[in-house]
Amino acid sequence: METDRSGETAINIPETKANAKGKAPLAVSSKAMVEQPKRGLKKGIAICDFLLRLCALGAAIGATATMGTTNETLPFFTQFFQFQAQYNDIPAFEFFVIANAIVAGYLLLSLPFSIICIIRPYATAPRLLLVIFDTVMMGLTIASASASASIVYLAHNGNPNTNWLAICQQFGDFCQKVSGAVVGSFIAGSILMFIILLSAFALKRS
Amino acid sequence: METDRSGETAINIPETKANAKGKAPLAVSSKAMVEQPKRGLKKGIAICDFLLRLCALGAAIGATATMGTTNETLPFFTQFFQFQAQYNDIPAFEFFVIANAIVAGYLLLSLPFSIICIIRPYATAPRLLLVIFDTVMMGLTIASASASASIVYLAHNGNPNTNWLAICQQFGDFCQKVSGAVVGSFIAGSILMFIILLSAFALKRS
Repeated sequence: METDRSGETAINIPETKANAKGKAPLAVSSKAMVEQPKRGLKKGIAICDFLLRLCALGAAIGATATMGTTNETLPFFTQFFQFQAQYNDIPAFEFFVIANAIVAGYLLLSLPFSIICIIRPYATAPRLLLVIFDTVMMGLTIASASASASIVYLAHNGNPNTNWLAICQQFGDFCQKVSGAVVGSFIAGSILMFIILLSAFALKRS
Repeated sequence: METDRSGETAINIPETKANAKGKAPLAVSSKAMVEQPKRGLKKGIAICDFLLRLCALGAAIGATATMGTTNETLPFFTQFFQFQAQYNDIPAFEFFVIANAIVAGYLLLSLPFSIICIIRPYATAPRLLLVIFDTVMMGLTIASASASASIVYLAHNGNPNTNWLAICQQFGDFCQKVSGAVVGSFIAGSILMFIILLSAFALKRS
Protein backbone atom coordinates (compact mmCIF):
# COMPACT_ATOMS: atom_id res chain seq x y z
CA MET A 1 0.00 0.00 0.00
CA GLU A 2 2.73 2.42 0.94
CA THR A 3 4.86 1.55 -2.09
CA ASP A 4 1.79 1.78 -4.29
CA ARG A 5 1.02 5.25 -2.99
CA SER A 6 4.54 6.50 -3.36
CA GLY A 7 4.79 4.94 -6.82
CA GLU A 8 1.58 6.59 -7.89
CA THR A 9 2.56 9.99 -6.68
CA ALA A 10 5.99 9.66 -8.21
CA ILE A 11 4.49 8.91 -11.60
CA ASN A 12 1.80 11.53 -11.52
CA ILE A 13 3.24 14.69 -10.05
CA PRO A 14 6.69 14.80 -8.47
CA GLU A 15 5.94 17.85 -6.37
CA THR A 16 3.16 16.03 -4.57
CA LYS A 17 5.57 13.53 -3.11
CA ALA A 18 7.94 16.18 -1.98
CA ASN A 19 5.15 18.12 -0.36
CA ALA A 20 3.85 15.03 1.34
CA LYS A 21 7.25 14.44 2.88
CA GLY A 22 7.42 18.07 3.87
CA LYS A 23 10.64 18.80 1.99
CA ALA A 24 10.09 20.04 -1.56
CA PRO A 25 13.67 19.89 -2.84
CA LEU A 26 12.50 18.12 -5.99
CA ALA A 27 9.92 20.80 -6.69
CA VAL A 28 12.60 23.47 -6.60
CA SER A 29 14.96 21.59 -8.87
CA SER A 30 12.28 20.70 -11.43
CA LYS A 31 11.06 24.30 -11.43
CA ALA A 32 14.62 25.43 -11.99
CA MET A 33 14.93 23.00 -14.90
CA VAL A 34 11.84 24.54 -16.50
CA GLU A 35 13.07 28.06 -15.80
CA GLN A 36 16.49 27.54 -17.35
CA PRO A 37 15.53 27.52 -21.07
CA LYS A 38 13.05 30.36 -20.49
CA ARG A 39 15.80 32.40 -18.91
CA GLY A 40 17.92 31.65 -21.96
CA LEU A 41 15.10 32.73 -24.27
CA LYS A 42 14.65 35.98 -22.38
CA LYS A 43 18.39 36.61 -22.46
CA GLY A 44 18.39 35.96 -26.22
CA ILE A 45 15.57 38.46 -26.70
CA ALA A 46 17.49 41.02 -24.63
CA ILE A 47 20.67 40.55 -26.68
CA CYS A 48 18.62 40.84 -29.90
CA ASP A 49 17.08 44.03 -28.51
CA PHE A 50 20.57 45.47 -27.86
CA LEU A 51 21.80 44.66 -31.37
CA LEU A 52 18.65 46.08 -33.00
CA ARG A 53 19.09 49.23 -30.94
CA LEU A 54 22.61 49.61 -32.36
CA CYS A 55 21.25 49.21 -35.92
CA ALA A 56 18.51 51.78 -35.29
CA LEU A 57 21.10 54.14 -33.80
CA GLY A 58 23.21 53.82 -36.95
CA ALA A 59 20.22 54.43 -39.20
CA ALA A 60 19.08 57.47 -37.20
CA ILE A 61 22.56 59.04 -37.10
CA GLY A 62 23.00 58.38 -40.81
CA ALA A 63 19.64 59.97 -41.63
CA THR A 64 20.37 63.03 -39.49
CA ALA A 65 23.85 63.51 -40.92
CA THR A 66 22.75 63.03 -44.53
CA MET A 67 19.86 65.47 -44.21
CA GLY A 68 21.83 67.98 -42.16
CA THR A 69 24.84 68.21 -44.47
CA THR A 70 22.99 68.19 -47.80
CA ASN A 71 23.67 71.43 -49.59
CA GLU A 72 23.51 72.16 -53.26
CA THR A 73 24.33 75.42 -54.97
CA LEU A 74 23.46 75.73 -58.60
CA PRO A 75 26.27 76.92 -60.91
CA PHE A 76 24.22 79.77 -62.38
CA PHE A 77 22.75 82.82 -60.67
CA THR A 78 20.73 85.92 -61.49
CA GLN A 79 21.43 89.47 -60.46
CA PHE A 80 19.42 89.17 -57.24
CA PHE A 81 19.53 85.57 -56.23
CA GLN A 82 21.79 82.56 -56.22
CA PHE A 83 19.93 79.28 -56.30
CA GLN A 84 20.81 77.17 -53.32
CA ALA A 85 19.04 74.33 -51.53
CA GLN A 86 19.61 73.34 -47.92
CA TYR A 87 17.62 71.38 -45.43
CA ASN A 88 16.50 74.49 -43.56
CA ASP A 89 14.76 75.90 -46.61
CA ILE A 90 11.87 73.55 -45.88
CA PRO A 91 10.34 73.34 -42.36
CA ALA A 92 9.56 69.62 -42.72
CA PHE A 93 13.25 68.89 -43.27
CA GLU A 94 14.19 70.97 -40.21
CA PHE A 95 11.76 68.91 -38.16
CA PHE A 96 13.31 65.79 -39.69
CA VAL A 97 16.82 66.74 -38.55
CA ILE A 98 15.68 67.69 -35.04
CA ALA A 99 13.50 64.58 -34.57
CA ASN A 100 16.14 62.17 -35.85
CA ALA A 101 18.80 63.76 -33.67
CA ILE A 102 16.52 63.33 -30.64
CA VAL A 103 15.87 59.68 -31.57
CA ALA A 104 19.60 59.00 -32.05
CA GLY A 105 20.34 60.58 -28.65
CA TYR A 106 17.62 58.54 -27.00
CA LEU A 107 18.85 55.30 -28.58
CA LEU A 108 22.37 56.00 -27.31
CA LEU A 109 21.08 56.66 -23.79
CA SER A 110 18.89 53.54 -23.89
CA LEU A 111 21.84 51.21 -24.47
CA PRO A 112 22.76 50.95 -20.74
CA PHE A 113 19.15 50.01 -19.91
CA SER A 114 19.25 47.40 -22.64
CA ILE A 115 22.44 45.98 -21.08
CA ILE A 116 20.65 45.83 -17.70
CA CYS A 117 17.93 43.78 -19.41
CA ILE A 118 20.60 41.35 -20.68
CA ILE A 119 22.13 40.95 -17.23
CA ARG A 120 18.77 40.60 -15.45
CA PRO A 121 16.37 38.96 -17.93
CA TYR A 122 13.53 38.92 -15.39
CA ALA A 123 13.66 42.59 -14.41
CA THR A 124 10.46 44.25 -15.65
CA ALA A 125 11.05 47.85 -14.53
CA PRO A 126 13.83 48.76 -17.02
CA ARG A 127 12.00 46.94 -19.80
CA LEU A 128 8.75 48.79 -19.15
CA LEU A 129 10.67 52.07 -19.13
CA LEU A 130 12.21 51.15 -22.48
CA VAL A 131 8.84 50.15 -23.98
CA ILE A 132 7.25 53.47 -23.00
CA PHE A 133 10.01 55.60 -24.50
CA ASP A 134 10.46 53.30 -27.51
CA THR A 135 6.80 53.77 -28.41
CA VAL A 136 7.05 57.55 -28.20
CA MET A 137 10.31 57.58 -30.18
CA MET A 138 8.85 55.28 -32.83
CA GLY A 139 6.01 57.77 -33.26
CA LEU A 140 8.48 60.64 -33.56
CA THR A 141 10.67 58.82 -36.10
CA ILE A 142 7.79 57.76 -38.31
CA ALA A 143 6.17 61.21 -38.08
CA SER A 144 9.35 62.99 -39.17
CA ALA A 145 10.10 60.47 -41.91
CA SER A 146 6.64 60.61 -43.45
CA ALA A 147 6.34 64.39 -43.17
CA SER A 148 9.58 64.65 -45.13
CA ALA A 149 8.56 61.87 -47.51
CA SER A 150 5.48 63.78 -48.59
CA ILE A 151 7.62 66.88 -49.28
CA VAL A 152 10.19 64.77 -51.15
CA TYR A 153 7.39 63.31 -53.26
CA LEU A 154 6.21 66.82 -54.03
CA ALA A 155 9.73 67.90 -54.92
CA HIS A 156 10.08 64.97 -57.30
CA ASN A 157 6.67 65.08 -58.94
CA GLY A 158 5.17 68.47 -58.23
CA ASN A 159 1.41 68.96 -58.14
CA PRO A 160 -0.34 70.55 -61.11
CA ASN A 161 -3.61 71.01 -59.17
CA THR A 162 -2.05 73.37 -56.68
CA ASN A 163 0.55 74.77 -59.07
CA TRP A 164 3.48 73.48 -57.05
CA LEU A 165 6.29 72.69 -59.49
CA ALA A 166 8.80 69.90 -59.10
CA ILE A 167 12.21 71.24 -58.02
CA CYS A 168 14.18 68.06 -58.55
CA GLN A 169 14.92 68.93 -62.16
CA GLN A 170 17.11 71.75 -60.84
CA PHE A 171 18.24 70.29 -57.55
CA GLY A 172 18.75 66.65 -58.54
CA ASP A 173 21.62 65.93 -56.18
CA PHE A 174 19.83 67.54 -53.23
CA CYS A 175 16.70 65.48 -53.91
CA GLN A 176 18.61 62.21 -54.07
CA LYS A 177 20.40 62.77 -50.77
CA VAL A 178 17.19 63.85 -49.06
CA SER A 179 15.39 60.74 -50.32
CA GLY A 180 18.20 58.61 -48.90
CA ALA A 181 17.86 60.30 -45.52
CA VAL A 182 14.11 59.65 -45.49
CA VAL A 183 14.68 55.98 -46.26
CA GLY A 184 17.21 55.78 -43.41
CA SER A 185 14.71 57.27 -41.02
CA PHE A 186 11.99 54.82 -42.09
CA ILE A 187 14.45 51.98 -41.45
CA ALA A 188 15.11 53.32 -37.95
CA GLY A 189 11.35 53.54 -37.35
CA SER A 190 10.78 49.97 -38.52
CA ILE A 191 13.57 48.66 -36.29
CA LEU A 192 12.02 50.51 -33.33
CA MET A 193 8.68 48.90 -34.16
CA PHE A 194 10.35 45.49 -34.10
CA ILE A 195 12.06 46.32 -30.78
CA ILE A 196 8.64 47.13 -29.25
CA LEU A 197 7.23 43.78 -30.40
CA LEU A 198 10.27 41.96 -28.97
CA SER A 199 9.80 43.76 -25.66
CA ALA A 200 6.12 42.76 -25.60
CA PHE A 201 7.19 39.12 -25.99
CA ALA A 202 9.81 39.52 -23.25
CA LEU A 203 7.29 41.12 -20.87
CA LYS A 204 4.80 38.31 -21.40
CA ARG A 205 4.22 36.16 -18.33
CA SER A 206 6.01 32.88 -18.92
CA MET B 1 -8.57 -0.39 -2.10
CA GLU B 2 -10.83 0.80 -4.91
CA THR B 3 -12.17 3.68 -2.86
CA ASP B 4 -8.66 4.50 -1.80
CA ARG B 5 -7.47 4.58 -5.40
CA SER B 6 -10.35 6.78 -6.49
CA GLY B 7 -9.58 9.01 -3.56
CA GLU B 8 -5.96 9.08 -4.70
CA THR B 9 -6.85 10.07 -8.24
CA ALA B 10 -9.08 12.78 -6.91
CA ILE B 11 -6.25 14.24 -4.88
CA ASN B 12 -3.57 14.08 -7.55
CA ILE B 13 -3.56 17.85 -7.76
CA PRO B 14 -0.80 19.03 -5.42
CA GLU B 15 -2.75 21.66 -3.54
CA THR B 16 -5.50 19.19 -2.71
CA LYS B 17 -3.04 16.78 -1.22
CA ALA B 18 -1.36 19.45 0.80
CA ASN B 19 -4.75 20.53 2.07
CA ALA B 20 -5.73 16.98 2.90
CA LYS B 21 -2.60 16.49 4.93
CA GLY B 22 -3.12 19.78 6.66
CA LYS B 23 0.07 21.25 5.22
CA ALA B 24 0.49 24.58 3.51
CA PRO B 25 -3.14 25.64 3.17
CA LEU B 26 -2.01 29.09 4.25
CA ALA B 27 0.25 29.40 1.22
CA VAL B 28 -2.60 28.59 -1.16
CA SER B 29 -5.08 30.97 0.37
CA SER B 30 -2.57 33.80 0.69
CA LYS B 31 -1.64 33.34 -2.96
CA ALA B 32 -5.32 33.53 -3.89
CA MET B 33 -5.66 36.68 -1.83
CA VAL B 34 -2.76 38.27 -3.70
CA GLU B 35 -4.14 37.17 -7.08
CA GLN B 36 -7.58 38.71 -6.53
CA PRO B 37 -6.67 42.43 -6.69
CA LYS B 38 -4.22 41.75 -9.55
CA ARG B 39 -7.00 40.12 -11.49
CA GLY B 40 -9.14 43.17 -10.82
CA LEU B 41 -6.31 45.45 -12.00
CA LYS B 42 -5.89 43.46 -15.20
CA LYS B 43 -9.63 43.53 -15.82
CA GLY B 44 -9.61 47.29 -15.28
CA ILE B 45 -6.79 47.68 -17.80
CA ALA B 46 -8.72 45.53 -20.29
CA ILE B 47 -11.89 47.61 -19.89
CA CYS B 48 -9.84 50.81 -20.27
CA ASP B 49 -8.32 49.31 -23.44
CA PHE B 50 -11.79 48.62 -24.84
CA LEU B 51 -13.04 52.16 -24.15
CA LEU B 52 -9.88 53.74 -25.63
CA ARG B 53 -10.33 51.58 -28.71
CA LEU B 54 -13.85 52.99 -29.13
CA CYS B 55 -12.49 56.55 -28.84
CA ALA B 56 -9.75 55.84 -31.38
CA LEU B 57 -12.34 54.29 -33.70
CA GLY B 58 -14.44 57.44 -33.49
CA ALA B 59 -11.45 59.67 -34.17
CA ALA B 60 -10.31 57.57 -37.15
CA ILE B 61 -13.79 57.43 -38.70
CA GLY B 62 -14.23 61.17 -38.16
CA ALA B 63 -10.87 61.93 -39.78
CA THR B 64 -11.61 59.68 -42.77
CA ALA B 65 -15.08 61.11 -43.30
CA THR B 66 -13.96 64.73 -42.94
CA MET B 67 -11.09 64.32 -45.36
CA GLY B 68 -13.07 62.21 -47.81
CA THR B 69 -16.05 64.52 -48.11
CA THR B 70 -14.19 67.84 -48.21
CA ASN B 71 -14.87 69.54 -51.50
CA GLU B 72 -14.68 73.19 -52.34
CA THR B 73 -15.50 74.80 -55.68
CA LEU B 74 -14.60 78.42 -56.09
CA PRO B 75 -17.43 80.69 -57.33
CA PHE B 76 -15.37 82.07 -60.23
CA PHE B 77 -13.94 80.25 -63.22
CA THR B 78 -11.91 80.98 -66.31
CA GLN B 79 -12.63 79.89 -69.83
CA PHE B 80 -10.64 76.67 -69.46
CA PHE B 81 -10.74 75.75 -65.84
CA GLN B 82 -12.98 75.82 -62.82
CA PHE B 83 -11.10 76.00 -59.56
CA GLN B 84 -11.99 73.09 -57.36
CA ALA B 85 -10.23 71.39 -54.46
CA GLN B 86 -10.81 67.80 -53.36
CA TYR B 87 -8.83 65.35 -51.29
CA ASN B 88 -7.72 63.39 -54.35
CA ASP B 89 -5.96 66.37 -55.86
CA ILE B 90 -3.08 65.72 -53.50
CA PRO B 91 -1.55 62.21 -53.15
CA ALA B 92 -0.78 62.67 -49.46
CA PHE B 93 -4.48 63.25 -48.75
CA GLU B 94 -5.43 60.14 -50.72
CA PHE B 95 -2.98 58.15 -48.60
CA PHE B 96 -4.54 59.77 -45.53
CA VAL B 97 -8.05 58.61 -46.45
CA ILE B 98 -6.92 55.06 -47.29
CA ALA B 99 -4.74 54.70 -44.18
CA ASN B 100 -7.37 56.06 -41.80
CA ALA B 101 -10.04 53.83 -43.31
CA ILE B 102 -7.77 50.82 -42.77
CA VAL B 103 -7.11 51.86 -39.18
CA ALA B 104 -10.84 52.37 -38.51
CA GLY B 105 -11.60 48.92 -39.97
CA TYR B 106 -8.87 47.33 -37.87
CA LEU B 107 -10.10 49.02 -34.69
CA LEU B 108 -13.62 47.75 -35.35
CA LEU B 109 -12.34 44.20 -35.89
CA SER B 110 -10.14 44.38 -32.78
CA LEU B 111 -13.11 45.06 -30.47
CA PRO B 112 -14.02 41.33 -30.06
CA PHE B 113 -10.41 40.51 -29.11
CA SER B 114 -10.50 43.35 -26.59
CA ILE B 115 -13.69 41.83 -25.11
CA ILE B 116 -11.92 38.46 -24.86
CA CYS B 117 -9.18 40.23 -22.87
CA ILE B 118 -11.84 41.60 -20.49
CA ILE B 119 -13.38 38.14 -19.96
CA ARG B 120 -10.03 36.39 -19.56
CA PRO B 121 -7.62 38.91 -17.99
CA TYR B 122 -4.79 36.36 -17.86
CA ALA B 123 -4.91 35.26 -21.52
CA THR B 124 -1.72 36.46 -23.20
CA ALA B 125 -2.31 35.21 -26.78
CA PRO B 126 -5.09 37.69 -27.77
CA ARG B 127 -3.26 40.50 -26.04
CA LEU B 128 0.00 39.78 -27.86
CA LEU B 129 -1.92 39.67 -31.15
CA LEU B 130 -3.46 43.04 -30.34
CA VAL B 131 -0.09 44.57 -29.39
CA ILE B 132 1.49 43.47 -32.67
CA PHE B 133 -1.27 44.91 -34.86
CA ASP B 134 -1.71 48.00 -32.67
CA THR B 135 1.95 48.87 -33.15
CA VAL B 136 1.69 48.54 -36.93
CA MET B 137 -1.54 50.53 -37.03
CA MET B 138 -0.09 53.25 -34.81
CA GLY B 139 2.75 53.60 -37.30
CA LEU B 140 0.28 53.80 -40.19
CA THR B 141 -1.90 56.40 -38.46
CA ILE B 142 0.99 58.65 -37.47
CA ALA B 143 2.60 58.30 -40.89
CA SER B 144 -0.58 59.33 -42.71
CA ALA B 145 -1.33 62.16 -40.29
CA SER B 146 2.14 63.68 -40.47
CA ALA B 147 2.44 63.29 -44.24
CA SER B 148 -0.80 65.23 -44.57
CA ALA B 149 0.23 67.70 -41.88
CA SER B 150 3.32 68.72 -43.81
CA ILE B 151 1.19 69.32 -46.94
CA VAL B 152 -1.38 71.26 -44.90
CA TYR B 153 1.42 73.41 -43.49
CA LEU B 154 2.60 74.06 -47.02
CA ALA B 155 -0.92 74.93 -48.14
CA HIS B 156 -1.27 77.40 -45.28
CA ASN B 157 2.15 79.04 -45.43
CA GLY B 158 3.65 78.22 -48.79
CA ASN B 159 7.40 78.09 -49.27
CA PRO B 160 9.16 81.01 -50.96
CA ASN B 161 12.42 79.06 -51.34
CA THR B 162 10.87 76.49 -53.64
CA ASN B 163 8.28 78.86 -55.13
CA TRP B 164 5.33 76.88 -53.77
CA LEU B 165 2.53 79.35 -53.08
CA ALA B 166 0.00 79.05 -50.27
CA ILE B 167 -3.39 77.94 -51.57
CA CYS B 168 -5.39 78.57 -48.41
CA GLN B 169 -6.13 82.17 -49.40
CA GLN B 170 -8.28 80.76 -52.17
CA PHE B 171 -9.43 77.51 -50.61
CA GLY B 172 -9.95 78.63 -47.00
CA ASP B 173 -12.81 76.28 -46.21
CA PHE B 174 -11.01 73.28 -47.72
CA CYS B 175 -7.89 74.01 -45.69
CA GLN B 176 -9.80 74.27 -42.42
CA LYS B 177 -11.60 70.96 -42.89
CA VAL B 178 -8.39 69.20 -43.91
CA SER B 179 -6.60 70.58 -40.83
CA GLY B 180 -9.40 69.22 -38.66
CA ALA B 181 -9.08 65.79 -40.23
CA VAL B 182 -5.32 65.77 -39.58
CA VAL B 183 -5.90 66.67 -35.94
CA GLY B 184 -8.42 63.82 -35.65
CA SER B 185 -5.93 61.38 -37.07
CA PHE B 186 -3.21 62.52 -34.66
CA ILE B 187 -5.67 61.99 -31.79
CA ALA B 188 -6.34 58.44 -33.02
CA GLY B 189 -2.57 57.82 -33.22
CA SER B 190 -2.02 59.12 -29.68
CA ILE B 191 -4.80 56.93 -28.31
CA LEU B 192 -3.27 53.91 -30.06
CA MET B 193 0.09 54.77 -28.48
CA PHE B 194 -1.58 54.84 -25.07
CA ILE B 195 -3.29 51.49 -25.79
CA ILE B 196 0.11 49.93 -26.55
CA LEU B 197 1.53 51.19 -23.25
CA LEU B 198 -1.52 49.83 -21.37
CA SER B 199 -1.03 46.45 -23.05
CA ALA B 200 2.63 46.42 -22.05
CA PHE B 201 1.56 46.93 -18.43
CA ALA B 202 -1.05 44.18 -18.74
CA LEU B 203 1.46 41.75 -20.27
CA LYS B 204 3.95 42.37 -17.47
CA ARG B 205 4.52 39.36 -15.27
CA SER B 206 2.77 40.02 -11.98
